[in-house]
Amino acid sequence: MPGGEIGAEFWIHEYITPWDFYAHGITRVLAYRRTPFQEMYIVETGAYGKALVLDAKWQSCTGDEFLYHEPLVHPAMLLHGSPKSVLILGGGEGATAREVLRWKTVERAAMVDIDQEVVDACREHLVEMHQNAFDDPRLEVVIDDALNVLDTTAHTWDVIISDLSDPIEDGPSFKLFTKEYFEKARSALSPDGVFVLQAGPVAPAELTMHARLVCTMKTVFDHVQSYSTHVPTYASSWGFALGTARPIDTRPDPDRIDRELQLKTTGGLRMLDGVTLLGLFQLPVHIRRAIAAETHIYTLKKPPKFFGKGTLADCAPGEAR
Amino acid sequence: MPGGEIGAEFWIHEYITPWDFYAHGITRVLAYRRTPFQEMYIVETGAYGKALVLDAKWQSCTGDEFLYHEPLVHPAMLLHGSPKSVLILGGGEGATAREVLRWKTVERAAMVDIDQEVVDACREHLVEMHQNAFDDPRLEVVIDDALNVLDTTAHTWDVIISDLSDPIEDGPSFKLFTKEYFEKARSALSPDGVFVLQAGPVAPAELTMHARLVCTMKTVFDHVQSYSTHVPTYASSWGFALGTARPIDTRPDPDRIDRELQLKTTGGLRMLDGVTLLGLFQLPVHIRRAIAAETHIYTLKKPPKFFGKGTLADCAPGEAR
Amino acid sequence: MPGGEIGAEFWIHEYITPWDFYAHGITRVLAYRRTPFQEMYIVETGAYGKALVLDAKWQSCTGDEFLYHEPLVHPAMLLHGSPKSVLILGGGEGATAREVLRWKTVERAAMVDIDQEVVDACREHLVEMHQNAFDDPRLEVVIDDALNVLDTTAHTWDVIISDLSDPIEDGPSFKLFTKEYFEKARSALSPDGVFVLQAGPVAPAELTMHARLVCTMKTVFDHVQSYSTHVPTYASSWGFALGTARPIDTRPDPDRIDRELQLKTTGGLRMLDGVTLLGLFQLPVHIRRAIAAETHIYTLKKPPKFFGKGTLADCAPGEAR
Amino acid sequence: MPGGEIGAEFWIHEYITPWDFYAHGITRVLAYRRTPFQEMYIVETGAYGKALVLDAKWQSCTGDEFLYHEPLVHPAMLLHGSPKSVLILGGGEGATAREVLRWKTVERAAMVDIDQEVVDACREHLVEMHQNAFDDPRLEVVIDDALNVLDTTAHTWDVIISDLSDPIEDGPSFKLFTKEYFEKARSALSPDGVFVLQAGPVAPAELTMHARLVCTMKTVFDHVQSYSTHVPTYASSWGFALGTARPIDTRPDPDRIDRELQLKTTGGLRMLDGVTLLGLFQLPVHIRRAIAAETHIYTLKKPPKFFGKGTLADCAPGEAR
Repeated sequence: MPGGEIGAEFWIHEYITPWDFYAHGITRVLAYRRTPFQEMYIVETGAYGKALVLDAKWQSCTGDEFLYHEPLVHPAMLLHGSPKSVLILGGGEGATAREVLRWKTVERAAMVDIDQEVVDACREHLVEMHQNAFDDPRLEVVIDDALNVLDTTAHTWDVIISDLSDPIEDGPSFKLFTKEYFEKARSALSPDGVFVLQAGPVAPAELTMHARLVCTMKTVFDHVQSYSTHVPTYASSWGFALGTARPIDTRPDPDRIDRELQLKTTGGLRMLDGVTLLGLFQLPVHIRRAIAAETHIYTLKKPPKFFGKGTLADCAPGEAR
Repeated sequence: MPGGEIGAEFWIHEYITPWDFYAHGITRVLAYRRTPFQEMYIVETGAYGKALVLDAKWQSCTGDEFLYHEPLVHPAMLLHGSPKSVLILGGGEGATAREVLRWKTVERAAMVDIDQEVVDACREHLVEMHQNAFDDPRLEVVIDDALNVLDTTAHTWDVIISDLSDPIEDGPSFKLFTKEYFEKARSALSPDGVFVLQAGPVAPAELTMHARLVCTMKTVFDHVQSYSTHVPTYASSWGFALGTARPIDTRPDPDRIDRELQLKTTGGLRMLDGVTLLGLFQLPVHIRRAIAAETHIYTLKKPPKFFGKGTLADCAPGEAR
Repeated sequence: MPGGEIGAEFWIHEYITPWDFYAHGITRVLAYRRTPFQEMYIVETGAYGKALVLDAKWQSCTGDEFLYHEPLVHPAMLLHGSPKSVLILGGGEGATAREVLRWKTVERAAMVDIDQEVVDACREHLVEMHQNAFDDPRLEVVIDDALNVLDTTAHTWDVIISDLSDPIEDGPSFKLFTKEYFEKARSALSPDGVFVLQAGPVAPAELTMHARLVCTMKTVFDHVQSYSTHVPTYASSWGFALGTARPIDTRPDPDRIDRELQLKTTGGLRMLDGVTLLGLFQLPVHIRRAIAAETHIYTLKKPPKFFGKGTLADCAPGEAR
Repeated sequence: MPGGEIGAEFWIHEYITPWDFYAHGITRVLAYRRTPFQEMYIVETGAYGKALVLDAKWQSCTGDEFLYHEPLVHPAMLLHGSPKSVLILGGGEGATAREVLRWKTVERAAMVDIDQEVVDACREHLVEMHQNAFDDPRLEVVIDDALNVLDTTAHTWDVIISDLSDPIEDGPSFKLFTKEYFEKARSALSPDGVFVLQAGPVAPAELTMHARLVCTMKTVFDHVQSYSTHVPTYASSWGFALGTARPIDTRPDPDRIDRELQLKTTGGLRMLDGVTLLGLFQLPVHIRRAIAAETHIYTLKKPPKFFGKGTLADCAPGEAR
């Protein structure tokens, strides 16, 4: 068996389960910082551009981040219809803000990230990601714990986007994936407001947490819609969940959506339009079934425990077989 | 940084690009054979069940194969409406045949695989895959080169399913991904017949080959439709392409599809129904654009060269950045 | 950074510590069996020939096994001077027996291995290892537990060679690395008899177990000598320990050794002669110091726990820093 | 098969051959710089302390560097007997200088390294390596190309130590592993001077280059002695070669060596003393044979090509089988 060429000697091994890992080959380190909160790399890869890596966990890369950030932001924005104020929890790369600021209706956006040094490094080294969103006068960057901000915000927001890192046990963000937190988010929304959550992977071996997050959101929001997209460098399909007080049209007319996007945004989307949105909302049977069968609710007392430090936790290997 | 548990010491490193690999942890080898054609393993994994591996290339596994085989088979069958005869090229695991035989309309199915030993081993060790499809009297297993069969078949088929291994340079199947071969397939179809091709990955760094395959099919079939699904253990979204003489309804009514499936199949689908099919046909913008911009046609003189033996070949790393 | 070619897609990851692994690229599987005792592969590698792998643990390979088997066998044989009967515990590949049978003085050798299927497979597929030692009428292959044989052997042996797999917790062999077992071995020796133990790695991060094994042997044998060699595919220097009732000359005259080897063996050694033996017995300072400072004795109640299933156990990472 | 714990998610894959790699798990990056010459990391590992990595190639680490630096330096120093001036080519970590400066006889040492930034970073982050050798007034650090220094040095040196990175094709150092360079080194030596070369790995699959380097040195120096040591994190035994005009005593009396070391050095050696030196000089048969059989001489026209960028080059896979 003759072999192939390889491009790297420096690798991140990202375990998806204890028996599956995706290895990212690093061709160059652009920045490295040890901040008070985490260990940060900005690296160059061979096929997928530049990437942000926090505590050895892949966050996003320029080569396929549009497959994550566009579906994270625009369905919620379209659902609201005319968002003026948007709160982003997490999202240090600035790519979520970039998508939010495409909306001409937006007058005020706040992005809350706990780590000034990461935000600064992304601003300097990941221009492809933020595309100078940080210079937009409508955007306020708040260096704080997302938990604090939700506890204390006086403003009501049209859209709240939870773009936090995965709820790893003992990690910084697991509390923000609970019923109590979703209630705080709901209270901070305007009556027509929409909440959207990055809601974990939906691959068969990893589906349980997503189903439980959707189940938990249903106890808080009148209407909840799950959808997913595939991000190659995550080695999984990725789930999202919308929560709102208004019914959600899961068969939106693509032409109408295209007209709205044309009217209300500055354009430039790479993966999402009316047709894509219609597709996103048509969940495959196995995901619908897993959600329908789920009864587990995440609370501060029983928060999610995402795989990533040695336990399968909320994964469902039995499901996958 | 405290570590995690790992489940395996035996790994298959599957390179997606020279800078990205997916590592499959093997917990047990169920069968190993060196056949006249290839080296075959049937292995057990930790999270994704049992897998077939040919020449160190992952073919499919019981944990997520339904995400590949259901969308491979049913869109073509539904498009035809009432398929009586179906020709399967490749598909030694028997899972494609399993899906075909769900259709009560099917009177005759032929599955062509070059390797008797692989078919026998799958029949013995991968019951979860074929679910005894091999015992169905409607199925004929033909041990032959798919090229020969297409050259010589006298029968006209309602549906032809190309479930061949990727067109690796010097591999056995690259000729079957060319204009000339697609023409032979078209000639072997009944007037309302439908051809469907497993048409390579559609992740941004790997999209070019899919676009070229669709472009090539358009020179042969009046109507061509691309669609994709995500198979976690492939570490990529996977593309398919339908070719037929009749127009393709890309906004099928989910209820009508569900009624058809209920009426004409024996049921048991895990991922595909009307809603899923509607979603499948809504391609994201970046894939539509790549297909629309493509002009390259694969011929026997200029066949595809899929990455896998040391060259990026038809990948488009520039596209991904 | 331009990359290099790689030769394999199938890999064994052998963890030396939780932060160091050696990956063996497999180019072909020659045999695979799941026996009542273990999972066995005989594989072909790119640079180091054929290898035996048991329970995903590398045992030895044709490319560098002479660096292990020659120093395992000949120092003990030379120390005795004229060994007539030799008992080998373990050593299923037949390479230890091969070295023993080079000695023309040997009239009777017994090799005890628990697994008939492994012995048979090695006999068929690893001719380079055993070089038909199994056909030598002086050799008796006993399929049994080494523990049983030591408990019941009526014969007294001139040399006993412990060529067992590492004392992994819950593994089959850890009891045989204890004071009690060494006492049984001593009882089974003739008065001038020599016992030799494969005694674990001696790399700085892994040295503790070797030191403890030597310390334990010193409570049983009047004279104990540690020595080591480097086996590249073990990714470590490997330690051995001799135990005997007679003083051990650690500065043997190379010319005398060469004459003995020429007189008493059939020749053919690749790494060991008088000069090599003189070198082997000159342990570096750090190993001598670790042994001198050690007081821990392994007993059946407190046996060794070798790294290999998730714990560093008897490793001494502090030592390595 | 239950798995084990792993300690890292960031790995350096160091290919020894295209079918063998050693993976170093990184727990923390202490420094990262992209200098005009190379890409530098100083990292922390789990079991082997801190390491210097240049262009993704492992240089040395605090956990086992003593197994490399002590045998690199002291045999040459002992051979000379009373070295006053020592020239070090390479050795940016400062560990070679540290060993040289243990000698009270040394009045002047010069260390030539091409990369100021690497020297500065090692000085700051690898105190365990240099142990403040840089502050010793006897040491002069010269930032220059070793080639230039050898071309122009007016001084004659008692000992010249070549501690350069491996002669990778297109790398910076391959010219310094040739007959012409060895002649320049000889010319820069005092009449009793000793030259010592880090002379590549001596594992069976990699032995050819070492044999050729020794063969080349024999055309330049009256007396040449090869010896080797095992450095676990190099995943190989490592070779050295001494060249001098005086005969070399390969059976030195350990007690005499110990007395010399006590008298002339400040002590603190961890692996080398009289016994160790005696052992080092007793090369195993297979290495002696490979050297004796070698006739290839490296010249500027035909320099060595060490594996590391995709070619086996001067490796001898046939030798290993």
